[in-house]
Amino acid sequence: MNIPETGLSEQELGERLHRAREKDTPFLSGRVLGSMCTAPHPASVETFRLFLDTNLGDPLINPGVVELRDEALEMLGDLVGAGPRSGGLFLSGGSEANFTALRLARDTTGRREVVMPRTAHFSFRKAAHALGMRVVETGLTETFEADVEDIKEAVTSETACVIGVAGNTEFGAVDDIEAIGEVGEDQGAWVHVDAAYGGFILPYLPEPVPFGLDVDGVSSVTIDPHKMGRAAIPAGCLFVEDEEVLMEGATRTPYVSTERQAGLLSTRPGAAAASMWAALNAIGHEGYRIQARSAVEIAEWFGGVMENKGATLIRKPGLGIVSLAVEENVAARELLAEEGWKVSLTTIVPGIRIVCMPHVTTENLTRFVEGLPNTLEVDDGRILHA
Amino acid sequence: MNIPETGLSEQELGERLHRAREKDTPFLSGRVLGSMCTAPHPASVETFRLFLDTNLGDPLINPGVVELRDEALEMLGDLVGAGPRSGGLFLSGGSEANFTALRLARDTTGRREVVMPRTAHFSFRKAAHALGMRVVETGLTETFEADVEDIKEAVTSETACVIGVAGNTEFGAVDDIEAIGEVGEDQGAWVHVDAAYGGFILPYLPEPVPFGLDVDGVSSVTIDPHKMGRAAIPAGCLFVEDEEVLMEGATRTPYVSTERQAGLLSTRPGAAAASMWAALNAIGHEGYRIQARSAVEIAEWFGGVMENKGATLIRKPGLGIVSLAVEENVAARELLAEEGWKVSLTTIVPGIRIVCMPHVTTENLTRFVEGLPNTLEVDDGRILHA
Repeated sequence: MNIPETGLSEQELGERLHRAREKDTPFLSGRVLGSMCTAPHPASVETFRLFLDTNLGDPLINPGVVELRDEALEMLGDLVGAGPRSGGLFLSGGSEANFTALRLARDTTGRREVVMPRTAHFSFRKAAHALGMRVVETGLTETFEADVEDIKEAVTSETACVIGVAGNTEFGAVDDIEAIGEVGEDQGAWVHVDAAYGGFILPYLPEPVPFGLDVDGVSSVTIDPHKMGRAAIPAGCLFVEDEEVLMEGATRTPYVSTERQAGLLSTRPGAAAASMWAALNAIGHEGYRIQARSAVEIAEWFGGVMENKGATLIRKPGLGIVSLAVEENVAARELLAEEGWKVSLTTIVPGIRIVCMPHVTTENLTRFVEGLPNTLEVDDGRILHA
Repeated sequence: MNIPETGLSEQELGERLHRAREKDTPFLSGRVLGSMCTAPHPASVETFRLFLDTNLGDPLINPGVVELRDEALEMLGDLVGAGPRSGGLFLSGGSEANFTALRLARDTTGRREVVMPRTAHFSFRKAAHALGMRVVETGLTETFEADVEDIKEAVTSETACVIGVAGNTEFGAVDDIEAIGEVGEDQGAWVHVDAAYGGFILPYLPEPVPFGLDVDGVSSVTIDPHKMGRAAIPAGCLFVEDEEVLMEGATRTPYVSTERQAGLLSTRPGAAAASMWAALNAIGHEGYRIQARSAVEIAEWFGGVMENKGATLIRKPGLGIVSLAVEENVAARELLAEEGWKVSLTTIVPGIRIVCMPHVTTENLTRFVEGLPNTLEVDDGRILHA
């Protein structure tokens, strides 16, 4: 396939694009059950378009979108317990945020060891590999939270960073951030909390769970507006306890209108920051509260329905995530995909994962359950429950 | 500023967003003279919207957009001299592409030294710092190309990566990639070419300049569709000579529907890849050829006009970039910004930089010139020309 000599007609372009689009499963079809992304809020969609040509790498051209970004960071800071000395970075997602946290941990402590529970997101391994840091993996409790005793044993004066996960990817379990903060602080380590998913849920629960910069010892927090925040991709943020630390190892950027950059990317879509601003302002605390509590309730309801059908939950639903034990998780995912249902995997215990994002309703899930054979045997001797 | 308790009304949101937008300088105003970005092609804009909720991190959900990405990578590969064994990555921009190239260079050679000309983009310093690599900076010719003799002296058996720039950021000068490829190959180093800007111009010049994977010794090339390619931000690509090398140091991604990821980010906008596909197909070779040659011609014309006005060009215009000597470049940029003109800087020799992107026309530039005082004295004793 080559670039055509002459550009295609609008009609031909439109036809080919729509044919490709039809192969995708849009969130609003209700059939994407395993993603931590969702349909951006309508205000995010409109706003993205309005700011599509803006570049956060060059604030001189785009002071308007920079203002929206800064306002949104202030709003988000409030959600993650930022104090007056805290600072935030708008980045491309959780991976860049987690990478930046590990880099700052390495550069400020001069150490190279990362202590993290097995449930930590793969972006930490990616980052550690790039940054030349060594990962020490620690164990889990029976309910898949980080085992704090294990962390205590692993953390030494060599530890650059200890990671706690506030809503882990596979089960939505929330690590004991207060305990992890204490362990890290005792050894002079950087304590990073990955709340990429949980950051928009934990503050809105009937009994909020402490996870942010207001917890003693916590140095930084990741939160992803393009997950439960309903901004458009790419939108992830890192908040640090002490704004000044962001200049540690930041790179001089001589020809554009910023002095230094702490994140890894340079040219970045202002549209994503504006869409984050729009989501925060269009949804409001009230909207996020309803959304968070619905996710939790729907997951609990769905977990119960599946148990009644004879399925085994790997763990009780956590923050809207339901994990079902299966013998062969990849095969189960493929068979469900053939039926039009897109789920993701758990791998710590083989299973499939359903994430009750705002586009996942009880109606969708009822259709999902009704489509499964009563025995939950999917096909070909593969069994969906253990 | 806090998240509002209740979401704002559509009208209030719209008003606040439009007030912010008015502070930005859109490319189509013709007043952004110093950016390497431009208004995305109308087909890119529409396409971005159509695929706004897609995530390249999860191909199971979005096979349609993945197909567009793969087709676009094949088309772009052709532009950068990819052969049958080559592979490409769609990334967020030149910074992630350059970062990934350095990481692959480090991981495949086991060495940690980066030899690069002073004109190499700041993203290489950012990446080298993160990756624990040492930068050896080499000198320039009188016309700001990399001094190949200097590179020859600097490259040793310790060199992981030698960088050549095919269209450098400040002057648009093109390094002698054939010579650099030879030097790197002789020492078993990875040779990376940064054609983030030049990649959409060099193949379209009346006498194309070799810069890609078809040059002996070249291991990888960066090209940025969100610059002259007219895709929407964020869109940058890395091509490597040998696709298999992409698995070197790639991270396992257990729960999503990819096996491993070679890039740093995980959740990424499919919309950007689709917008790249749309731009390539809507513009075609013919459109890119016209655009590239116009940029070069307009820059030469504008350089001549400024010389007639008594200004000093730091270097003859290169690939559509005009650099004007000024005594105090930051002050000059600010004074011009007050007049509504947004230029960027040169720093190797202090100056201001005008980039003749598709939105920069002879009419805009004529208005720019007419607005300058005849003497080119800007104000306050600061003089625009040397």
